[in-house]
Amino acid sequence: MKTRLKSPLYLQLAENVEGMITAGTLRAGDRVPSVRQLSRQHKVSVPTVVQAYTLLESRRVIEARPKSGFYVRPKQAVGLTEPAMPRRVPAAADLKGFAPLMSVIHDIADPALVPLGGAIPSAELLPLDKLSRITSGILRKTTAAAINYDPTPGCLGLRKELGRRSLDWGCYLEADHFILTNGASEALHLALRAVTRPGDTVIVESPVYYGLLHILSELHLKALAVPASARDGISIEGVELAVKRGKVAAIVVIPNFSNPLGSFMPEENRKALLDLAAARGIPVIEDDIYGDIPHEGPRPRCLKSLDTHDNVILCGSFSKTLAPGFRSGFIASERHRDRLIALKMSINFANTSLQALALAEFLRTGGYDHHLRRLRHTYRGQVGKMREAIAATFPSSTKVSNPAGGFVLWLELPTHVDSREIFQTAREAGISVAPGFLFSPASEFNHCLRISCGFPWSPRIETAVAQLGQIVARRV
Amino acid sequence: MKTRLKSPLYLQLAENVEGMITAGTLRAGDRVPSVRQLSRQHKVSVPTVVQAYTLLESRRVIEARPKSGFYVRPKQAVGLTEPAMPRRVPAAADLKGFAPLMSVIHDIADPALVPLGGAIPSAELLPLDKLSRITSGILRKTTAAAINYDPTPGCLGLRKELGRRSLDWGCYLEADHFILTNGASEALHLALRAVTRPGDTVIVESPVYYGLLHILSELHLKALAVPASARDGISIEGVELAVKRGKVAAIVVIPNFSNPLGSFMPEENRKALLDLAAARGIPVIEDDIYGDIPHEGPRPRCLKSLDTHDNVILCGSFSKTLAPGFRSGFIASERHRDRLIALKMSINFANTSLQALALAEFLRTGGYDHHLRRLRHTYRGQVGKMREAIAATFPSSTKVSNPAGGFVLWLELPTHVDSREIFQTAREAGISVAPGFLFSPASEFNHCLRISCGFPWSPRIETAVAQLGQIVARRV
Repeated sequence: MKTRLKSPLYLQLAENVEGMITAGTLRAGDRVPSVRQLSRQHKVSVPTVVQAYTLLESRRVIEARPKSGFYVRPKQAVGLTEPAMPRRVPAAADLKGFAPLMSVIHDIADPALVPLGGAIPSAELLPLDKLSRITSGILRKTTAAAINYDPTPGCLGLRKELGRRSLDWGCYLEADHFILTNGASEALHLALRAVTRPGDTVIVESPVYYGLLHILSELHLKALAVPASARDGISIEGVELAVKRGKVAAIVVIPNFSNPLGSFMPEENRKALLDLAAARGIPVIEDDIYGDIPHEGPRPRCLKSLDTHDNVILCGSFSKTLAPGFRSGFIASERHRDRLIALKMSINFANTSLQALALAEFLRTGGYDHHLRRLRHTYRGQVGKMREAIAATFPSSTKVSNPAGGFVLWLELPTHVDSREIFQTAREAGISVAPGFLFSPASEFNHCLRISCGFPWSPRIETAVAQLGQIVARRV
Repeated sequence: MKTRLKSPLYLQLAENVEGMITAGTLRAGDRVPSVRQLSRQHKVSVPTVVQAYTLLESRRVIEARPKSGFYVRPKQAVGLTEPAMPRRVPAAADLKGFAPLMSVIHDIADPALVPLGGAIPSAELLPLDKLSRITSGILRKTTAAAINYDPTPGCLGLRKELGRRSLDWGCYLEADHFILTNGASEALHLALRAVTRPGDTVIVESPVYYGLLHILSELHLKALAVPASARDGISIEGVELAVKRGKVAAIVVIPNFSNPLGSFMPEENRKALLDLAAARGIPVIEDDIYGDIPHEGPRPRCLKSLDTHDNVILCGSFSKTLAPGFRSGFIASERHRDRLIALKMSINFANTSLQALALAEFLRTGGYDHHLRRLRHTYRGQVGKMREAIAATFPSSTKVSNPAGGFVLWLELPTHVDSREIFQTAREAGISVAPGFLFSPASEFNHCLRISCGFPWSPRIETAVAQLGQIVARRV
């Protein structure tokens, strides 16, 4: 009884669970018993269990995953703090200086280097044989359709499959809402062309995917980079501040496992963002290319699923999960459909026919879902291994993101470290990595790096990460 | 001797040749003996033969084909006059009203209608089996490369093949000069983005391919439509007049078998155009998608082959000859290469990988040249049949072009005929046809029609042409 008085129930419970982890009964990545289970097992109240898990979470022993419960955190990652959210909302930047960095963007995807740069999935992770067989089958069975024009909006069969899949995203989209595009890049480009004019300001996350900055730059748009946290994504307060400051033509976000942060926007933030945007008539462009690859649990819903104003333009693709070279992207918007079709036709008339037919067949026969189950597990493993290796080889001051989906990590180094230098030295050592300055319209993240975990763990990658750690350490 | 004095030698010679045609010794489409041959055979001087052929040409008994000699004209076409060149150079038009016509552009390519509308080759003309086999082979042999990213500028193997083929175009382009694009449309879009800014004026041919007007319209460019003749293409005097009148940002031409006129620019006009453009620093954008399909004789050279100032941006594709749904286009320019790559990456990052690999293989193994030889013959036959059918069923006041390549015909009807009405009535009768007003920024050709001969001659097409003739006749 004495002991009981000394140590409250929730603390005992927490120590009990932590003991199971120390003893190895529960391992890194395992799901801990649900709140209800533990409450039943130990005959304690649900709030007590919640208190215990909150404590363990604050001690970084377990972690919450969206819609999925609590999991044991990788031990080696204990030393890693998540990068903090930058504080101020900068002014809109005109991106005139962004274009010359094309050479860097090229190097990031250079296949001759150890591939820690581009957010590109390794071919080893893709269902090459199955996709190849299906594609050849389509070529044989519907040769004429596979070789002749497939006019925009593109292959009805694929658009129907997308409509069916949209139920998983929490949306009820129909085939007619979709337009096939050459990758999600083209979808973003089209969405921006449809709702902006040169000189307009667009709100983006900060840090932001450099490809989006490149699109904005070529469309003569200004980027207003609103701080985002590695956990929750874009700051709603930041967006509020930004829209009050001046006219904003569009907001572009990656609510599910953003690139580069890996953040996941909580439902309340999503709702707040949509309300804010709808109230001011600002279109929201959602990039959902990582939505299919949560590391655990069900496929998260799209921002568009909460969109009651037909104000969200949804962009997606199968480039991060299935076949980057298929360039199978799509865009969905009821309101802007006709404009988007006209724009797509002015850019390149239509997509390739064969890939659309093959992908429709792959989706129809269930091959994709089967593949996704494996892929999610694989990405989770690769991201975990990479975090462990970073914790083991990078200076202890390194902060690293802990994404619940996708396959990129965001690293924050001491502020005096120059990511251009790291990039250059790593490149000379045969390693590609994405330098942080690329992810900001104003070189704000020059002390950061994005590391891709798109390739299976291997001695080559392990060595490269260690080398990279040394390169960083020499500059800390 | 008396007879000889009465009738000059060249006239006798001309009547001799015409007699062979009447007797059926020489048939429509046959090549008549070369000037040298005839001179030797009849022991007359070369100038006399030239005089005789010029006479027969003016009588529309024979016709000159570029770099190939003289041919017997189809008899049935004798009643058809080529459309005249419009006289005045209009002011630049801003194309704001062009976008709503997208529905018409869609209907033109509606596969449910008899296909006299879109300039789309029938699948029956394409080497489906061979292309399908090669594509499946690539998928099997280089699966990873076919499914993963192929970063811009795209597949080196294909760019090398394009470099090799450029010798046939009179150019000496290297792999590095090419960037692969999603069709020639994307190439035109990129070229215009690279050398213009919104509000700029671009010289185009009049009539002009409506797809180009759509691109200009979406880029907020003005079109200055300079008259073109069905024989020689754009008027050099017209271009001179236009560039003197105001600032011109670019000139877009189809020198080889233009769409819709089928015109072929004579060498002296090409040189004059290039001199004029170079002197004023105006970039020339060459669309060469029909260059591979002369009806007879060797592949004509590109305008770019005469370009000594690196001032021509060459755009092309395999959509009219091999595989529209492959979206295998390209753009070549040394001067603008880096800009074009940056622009392409901002639009859709990269092309599909598989089609580039398959096309490279098809070109490498000589399959394309073999296919082209048949295709040229086929298009020539289809165009000839269509001209005969038009002569037989359309009102006698109808004027029709007589192209030496490509597969579209341009029809001029009496000026009070309304092509919108014809288009609508034909559509209701299940026939697609391209109404003339689409081919002008100012609805200038509303009394014209473009008829595509992309499909094999068939009773269905024959009936449709007769129906179309009746529809027109009721309005004449």
